[in-house]
Amino acid sequence: MAKKKYAIGVDMGASFTKIGLVDELGNLSMDSTLNTTDFKTAQDFVNTLSLQVQLIVGAAPGTVVGVGIGAPNGNYKTGAINSSANLPWKEYIPLREMLMEQVDVPVLVTNDANAAAKGELLFGKAKGMKNFILLTLGTGVGSGIVANGELLCGHDGLAGELGHIIAKPNGRPCGCGRKGCLETYASATGILNTAQKIMMANGLIPFQTSRAITEAAMMGNPMALEVFNQTGKVLGKVLAHVHTVLSPEAIIFFGGLANARDFLLVPTRKAFEDELLFIYKENKPELMISGLQHKNAAILGAAAMVF
Amino acid sequence: MAKKKYAIGVDMGASFTKIGLVDELGNLSMDSTLNTTDFKTAQDFVNTLSLQVQLIVGAAPGTVVGVGIGAPNGNYKTGAINSSANLPWKEYIPLREMLMEQVDVPVLVTNDANAAAKGELLFGKAKGMKNFILLTLGTGVGSGIVANGELLCGHDGLAGELGHIIAKPNGRPCGCGRKGCLETYASATGILNTAQKIMMANGLIPFQTSRAITEAAMMGNPMALEVFNQTGKVLGKVLAHVHTVLSPEAIIFFGGLANARDFLLVPTRKAFEDELLFIYKENKPELMISGLQHKNAAILGAAAMVF
Repeated sequence: MAKKKYAIGVDMGASFTKIGLVDELGNLSMDSTLNTTDFKTAQDFVNTLSLQVQLIVGAAPGTVVGVGIGAPNGNYKTGAINSSANLPWKEYIPLREMLMEQVDVPVLVTNDANAAAKGELLFGKAKGMKNFILLTLGTGVGSGIVANGELLCGHDGLAGELGHIIAKPNGRPCGCGRKGCLETYASATGILNTAQKIMMANGLIPFQTSRAITEAAMMGNPMALEVFNQTGKVLGKVLAHVHTVLSPEAIIFFGGLANARDFLLVPTRKAFEDELLFIYKENKPELMISGLQHKNAAILGAAAMVF
Repeated sequence: MAKKKYAIGVDMGASFTKIGLVDELGNLSMDSTLNTTDFKTAQDFVNTLSLQVQLIVGAAPGTVVGVGIGAPNGNYKTGAINSSANLPWKEYIPLREMLMEQVDVPVLVTNDANAAAKGELLFGKAKGMKNFILLTLGTGVGSGIVANGELLCGHDGLAGELGHIIAKPNGRPCGCGRKGCLETYASATGILNTAQKIMMANGLIPFQTSRAITEAAMMGNPMALEVFNQTGKVLGKVLAHVHTVLSPEAIIFFGGLANARDFLLVPTRKAFEDELLFIYKENKPELMISGLQHKNAAILGAAAMVF
């Protein structure tokens, strides 16, 4: 009988790095966590990561076919991290090369949104889909695109930065130096900003977290509902334009803001459909919440790259 | 010795349908033309097309491996034409099925922009590229996208309608029923419209054709140059946003308006680079004019689909 196949998934974050063993059905085991900030250099980090990988490979009840790493600014084509603003080490980090010097299994690196898209494809709602967009709505807005059944990387590994499509010309200033990027409206930060404007215009104390806005919406708070309406309007409109490029069968939302579920989905879908080019109206894509929303999606997705 | 391989390319247009035999190097022979409007029904048209195909297959100096058809609104996935506004027959035409009932070689159907992209990939400037966009700037604006080395079709075969990305919110009315589509600015019709506005504001008689604008620009006419400046500004900005989705290594312009060459390219490139997200500035894509601009690109492209 053939040995069961496994992959090691690594979710590398600015604060914590989570590691786990994943089987082909998406079951996670042997997971552990490193404090990313504990390491002075990227090399120190890789040394410890490599030990963890070797431990898991040795203890796995089957064959480990590779290691997948989802990292901020991870580039699938180069296997490197190109000056991430969030990590403690600012230099260019050839992560795949560094780790492969120390372990005997193949290593793949990508950014967190691409990893999430791969996870959705193998273990989530995108099973069997050949064309879909996974949007991560967190502190920022990231995206992983699958087209013709493959991750769309572009010539330089940097395709799919939907958070930086201009949603409003001359809109809110963005960290990228331009104005009006989708991220400044449809991220946790963006929605807090929208909430602040609405609340202060009504003489009220602003919400402190995007989660508080969702909780207020659940209680029927009209201000919170209005925040989601405005956010969905911006998001839906941008996605209608992106649809014109990719024509996916689904657009899937993942991350903190996706916990708002229908509060976000309903106004987004309305704006999307209102703005959609007529040729797409017959086979409209589905807008949905990720099937991995409350699982260790980042580890699963990173592992999914390897399978 | 293996027999030489050929494909039959069909460029189906509203007025004329051109047919030719193409070898793997992109050499065209045995070409002929039908008047599309001569046929009362799509079935009559297919009957005659089938005879032409059989004639060429019989006379070809090698093996004909298939027929590729580029048609307005042709859908690669379904092989059908879905109510084209331009063809004399308005109904749904299952073109691939209809022709395959009468000929013994495989038939592929796609829209003209996708065919042009395939032609550019095999015989033009995109040779060896895995990620590029081909933009047809004619009466309308169409696009064919190649990602990961494959034509990007989307789930319904309708991806890549870049002409209908909103370039200016609440801008010029478009035939699609919305406002501000790229097509209303960067097509032959769009540029004439821009010219008219500029000329009339200066009390001058407007140019009558987009070709006349190019000829005037060649003579240094400041109004004509301004028309191209304004057009390039709109086009470059939209392409910078599209780049955020696809990150291609080249964006290639084809069609009537592309004859303006640097008059269009220079301002488009400037607007594109000004608007581009910083992460793309290191490996900027090239903006260029098609390598098939004055060849029978539509026949070559249709044939290229088959190879």
